[in-house]
Amino acid sequence: MDSDSQAPRLVDVGGLSRALERFAQERDWTQFHSPKNLAMALTGEVGELVEIFQWMSAEESASAGADPRTAQAVRDELADVLVYLVRLADRLGVDLDSAVRDKMQRNALRYPADEVRGSNRKRGP
Amino acid sequence: MDSDSQAPRLVDVGGLSRALERFAQERDWTQFHSPKNLAMALTGEVGELVEIFQWMSAEESASAGADPRTAQAVRDELADVLVYLVRLADRLGVDLDSAVRDKMQRNALRYPADEVRGSNRKRGP
Amino acid sequence: MDSDSQAPRLVDVGGLSRALERFAQERDWTQFHSPKNLAMALTGEVGELVEIFQWMSAEESASAGADPRTAQAVRDELADVLVYLVRLADRLGVDLDSAVRDKMQRNALRYPADEVRGSNRKRGP
Amino acid sequence: MDSDSQAPRLVDVGGLSRALERFAQERDWTQFHSPKNLAMALTGEVGELVEIFQWMSAEESASAGADPRTAQAVRDELADVLVYLVRLADRLGVDLDSAVRDKMQRNALRYPADEVRGSNRKRGP
Repeated sequence: MDSDSQAPRLVDVGGLSRALERFAQERDWTQFHSPKNLAMALTGEVGELVEIFQWMSAEESASAGADPRTAQAVRDELADVLVYLVRLADRLGVDLDSAVRDKMQRNALRYPADEVRGSNRKRGP
Repeated sequence: MDSDSQAPRLVDVGGLSRALERFAQERDWTQFHSPKNLAMALTGEVGELVEIFQWMSAEESASAGADPRTAQAVRDELADVLVYLVRLADRLGVDLDSAVRDKMQRNALRYPADEVRGSNRKRGP
Repeated sequence: MDSDSQAPRLVDVGGLSRALERFAQERDWTQFHSPKNLAMALTGEVGELVEIFQWMSAEESASAGADPRTAQAVRDELADVLVYLVRLADRLGVDLDSAVRDKMQRNALRYPADEVRGSNRKRGP
Repeated sequence: MDSDSQAPRLVDVGGLSRALERFAQERDWTQFHSPKNLAMALTGEVGELVEIFQWMSAEESASAGADPRTAQAVRDELADVLVYLVRLADRLGVDLDSAVRDKMQRNALRYPADEVRGSNRKRGP
């Protein structure tokens, strides 16, 4: 199940992981950090992120990161989602780099470029 | 607004970012990767992640990453959420490391350890 | 806080509410129906609903209810979301009709037609 | 596919449906009410609902509807989710009562009481 450990890392979230562990320990908040609770917190932050775009057209959404009216909210909500995702992975004992490398390998097999190019029938991720 | 660029990185997602850009280009899928669409895809994956834990107690959720019945689903859904988050940040032109360092600085000021320790009144992130 | 009880009902979910209570009792599932769990189940179903539209344009989404490729999934996911919403409201002791009447009154005050007509600055609900 | 039209209604959302159509027409907001946008708005409101419970235990969540600190937020967020769900169903041309009756019939077949009683292996809805 594990990716070749010699393949280059796709992500390194160690710094954030350690910062979040320290942050929670200093506040005695680890007691609230069950995966169940963290998955709910992640949901709340994804909701806040989605709300930024909900009434925009696809074109308007493309400039939301640069538009001064929304740029800060976009940065903050992306950060909040990442924070809870990294904390959740840690509390579950999952190495995000290993998990995403495995998934990318399977995605390449599942969506061969020749078969799916340009189509919206099979598009993810 | 920007964090001190000499502070150590909290996350490095460059490898995944480049892999996702290449993946989308090979399949001519970038046309579907508006921030609006990617935010919706992120929502779908968070839903799949949350479903793993929905009927579990907090204690059961703590071992979901190790339990052979759920371990693979946990890895896969965490990876899927990360994939869409990184792709979304890229399409919005947001540097996730910069965004999360700014947010962590503000979180430390917003939740001083002395004031919030052990309480569930103010608990985020 | 309560709406005028003589105003006409906006929704009546009593039949579904009773059916869901019976369904849970027959299966001894009420033990799993904490609001926390039901909110997570609701999240999972909203994720499945959103996935139907995630790669569509706004125009394509407008016909998703009629298009034979997606019509059944659209019906099923809307139903699943409603089921968990009604069950959650019941377990919280909330009368959905009363709650929505209060909210509609406040929405009318918050978004006066003269001020917001046609604009995407203030658009919800 | 359709339920027996003589079976009693499980839900009647007609009053809310008409109120929401009127509300949108008065504000010229229907242009923003593609199913895609409404599904995103629904996501945002579910996020706000979930946030109320995210740090609570299952027991604490059971009293969130009565606790004066959370009761109003619980009512408001349940109402907001219902509003977007009903509006989304309307814009998709789906009769929620018909959809939920179909689903309840299939759920009864899929989760026979004798097989699933009391177990958390197959629990939904």
